[in-house]
Amino acid sequence: MTSVRTLPQGIMPDLELARSMFGELERHTRVGRGIVRASYGAGEHFAHQLAERTAQGLGLEIETDAACNLYMTLPGRRRDLPRLVVGSHMDSVPQGGNYDGAAGVVAGLSAVAGLKSFGIVPRCDVTIMAIRAEEAAWFDSSYVGSHAAFGRLAGEALDVPRSDTKRPLADHMAESGCDVAALRRGEAHLKPAGIAAFLEVHIEQGPVLEHAALPVGIVTGIRGCLRHASAKCFGDYAHSGAAPRSVRRDAVAATVELVHRLGQHWAETERAGADLVFTVGQFNTDPLVAAPSKVAGETRFVLDFRGLEEGTMRDASRAAVRLANEIGARQNVRFELGEPSYSYPAVMDQGLRGRLSEIATSVEIPAMELASGAGHDAAVFATFGVPSGMIFIRNSNGSHNPDEAMDLADFGLAAQLLATYIARDLA
Amino acid sequence: MTSVRTLPQGIMPDLELARSMFGELERHTRVGRGIVRASYGAGEHFAHQLAERTAQGLGLEIETDAACNLYMTLPGRRRDLPRLVVGSHMDSVPQGGNYDGAAGVVAGLSAVAGLKSFGIVPRCDVTIMAIRAEEAAWFDSSYVGSHAAFGRLAGEALDVPRSDTKRPLADHMAESGCDVAALRRGEAHLKPAGIAAFLEVHIEQGPVLEHAALPVGIVTGIRGCLRHASAKCFGDYAHSGAAPRSVRRDAVAATVELVHRLGQHWAETERAGADLVFTVGQFNTDPLVAAPSKVAGETRFVLDFRGLEEGTMRDASRAAVRLANEIGARQNVRFELGEPSYSYPAVMDQGLRGRLSEIATSVEIPAMELASGAGHDAAVFATFGVPSGMIFIRNSNGSHNPDEAMDLADFGLAAQLLATYIARDLA
Repeated sequence: MTSVRTLPQGIMPDLELARSMFGELERHTRVGRGIVRASYGAGEHFAHQLAERTAQGLGLEIETDAACNLYMTLPGRRRDLPRLVVGSHMDSVPQGGNYDGAAGVVAGLSAVAGLKSFGIVPRCDVTIMAIRAEEAAWFDSSYVGSHAAFGRLAGEALDVPRSDTKRPLADHMAESGCDVAALRRGEAHLKPAGIAAFLEVHIEQGPVLEHAALPVGIVTGIRGCLRHASAKCFGDYAHSGAAPRSVRRDAVAATVELVHRLGQHWAETERAGADLVFTVGQFNTDPLVAAPSKVAGETRFVLDFRGLEEGTMRDASRAAVRLANEIGARQNVRFELGEPSYSYPAVMDQGLRGRLSEIATSVEIPAMELASGAGHDAAVFATFGVPSGMIFIRNSNGSHNPDEAMDLADFGLAAQLLATYIARDLA
Repeated sequence: MTSVRTLPQGIMPDLELARSMFGELERHTRVGRGIVRASYGAGEHFAHQLAERTAQGLGLEIETDAACNLYMTLPGRRRDLPRLVVGSHMDSVPQGGNYDGAAGVVAGLSAVAGLKSFGIVPRCDVTIMAIRAEEAAWFDSSYVGSHAAFGRLAGEALDVPRSDTKRPLADHMAESGCDVAALRRGEAHLKPAGIAAFLEVHIEQGPVLEHAALPVGIVTGIRGCLRHASAKCFGDYAHSGAAPRSVRRDAVAATVELVHRLGQHWAETERAGADLVFTVGQFNTDPLVAAPSKVAGETRFVLDFRGLEEGTMRDASRAAVRLANEIGARQNVRFELGEPSYSYPAVMDQGLRGRLSEIATSVEIPAMELASGAGHDAAVFATFGVPSGMIFIRNSNGSHNPDEAMDLADFGLAAQLLATYIARDLA
């Protein structure tokens, strides 16, 4: 066996395998301008079959679970040790791109191909997991596949209709060969205790790496989201010229002040060193009633706070309520921010992060640490107590659109980091 | 002849005549919940016929012009002197109220009835003018009737279709008995030199008098309007969680800052003693593209500045451009405020304002001075150099809606002020 510690460049992944898989995915799942791999739909099925075929070619052990998640295992020297799971999803949003999700499965397979070409047999099993149904675009909630793998798919989730077919998840699963009854019973295929770590390679969905001119990112955590999705402000409609300041109840003026001051709260929070992003992605006056010559009597808007710490998001929400009360009293309007929805942040394992950074430095892969703003299956593994890590690949034009763009050279560096981690830390 | 200067209460108008006219208007021009008196439509015709019938009953001289404006004249002792015109319009917006416009004509007739009951013959003619087509809701521009009376109705205005029938103004005028050819030739019925003054009684369209608990207002001027009606801000759509502050081009954050700071400019302008109101009545993200989890790449909004001085409005517009440039550069977005539309303010005659205030004080009519935010025919008379004044009547629930509400007692005080002015100053 080659001593991988002496290889200065680490383990090179099989980029021909990767290029071929991306090409096949592209040819078979492009519909018009974008990629369509609906959860439990034809595009996702094709992707899973392609992964299985490729894994068989590499001699990996194949398994599926009750939710048709696919497990492709490179056996380790000791089968009884907790294994490393390397995974991501293979579905896409409607009219999405070719890399969001799939790149993680392809990275796992090309890394394993690289390990095999070096003749490396790791200490424990390394399982590449092609996860089902991660995208919330289809069944209104994320992580169907990874929740199901842990036996934690909620019963009511099975009744949710798919956004295109209007038929429930349970039907689509049954057609795909899933064991819906087992899912309803909450049978788990994965046990946290059986997993040493979970690693997910994924394209970055923001522009941080591109702006930093770095190909690879090591994720510190997946931001949670606290969202007031149906916030409203109520004032009174009035003639814009005839209503002086003292009698106005101007919903736009009040909302504008609230949003502006929450932007200042965000800046102060960042200066204090905490992780937070604040976004008002929707802000509207009433299309049927508002007019250029009327003081606006109503606004509707969304307050979206994301961060790596629950406390930071709760603080921001409390600041919103406090400011809404203060501005509402002063401007004589009424805010209804509503109860916020909340999804937990997931912190990536400190030890894994450190090792990935050390290895990137040692094999000269230019990398930086960054937070993930979007959710990923890694958040589910972290929530179930599995030490988890993520490697991001630089990506242009955002994700969830046909223009997402990943350079194969950048992909290669991420897969190289993954393979070298396995070779060195699971040697 | 009674010496009116010795009557402490001034001249009382004929409120039974007013009550009867408002009742007839209400019964004949209510359609569903609101009043409909379309310009050159059935409701407006009825109102003009009612005014003419009432004027005949009072023995006034009747005349119409090429645009079917109606002139009802109480002859003065000297017919060669420039006359006083007392007028307002009789059309309404679709689903409007019973008083917006009509109250001014009814006030003129009930004041004249009061003068006659005291046996007063004024020094010069007093003409009550029922003006056609003031509301922009029907032919897309205000003041059709008063412009036509001065021979200044633009030729292209005659081709504008009415919002309900889609047939041009010229057709509706011809059907009403107007002399469209004379209007096209620009023949004037009114000459500014022949008019000593113009007085218009009108319900207030804002809540100022109601908040001040005063029945009557004396108008300082009619605010002009400088409006950026199609202002836009362009940024970039991005994932709300994955795009940090440094790379964002957030159209909502930038627009919110612009509107908030223009609100501060308004407050500073008011503190400096200038007349200005600032309104953003419409503020929208793109309904097709914006989403709760996306940084907004575009906003559309309206900046509406109104004031009694052109300079104040131009300053505000320049402040908007300067702030848009500053914020755009700092937040990395691009504002397009567009060329503003502009309508001139009209200052009411200082001498008339002073006399109306003195008379109100002397006959103990509680009154205050205030600016008019909405446009009125008085602005046209002022623009043509006629010394003009307006008397506002307290009104609940705004105007241009079925709920506008005027107390007949308040109306009586406004008509009393008008009648007493005529009795004292045109004695």
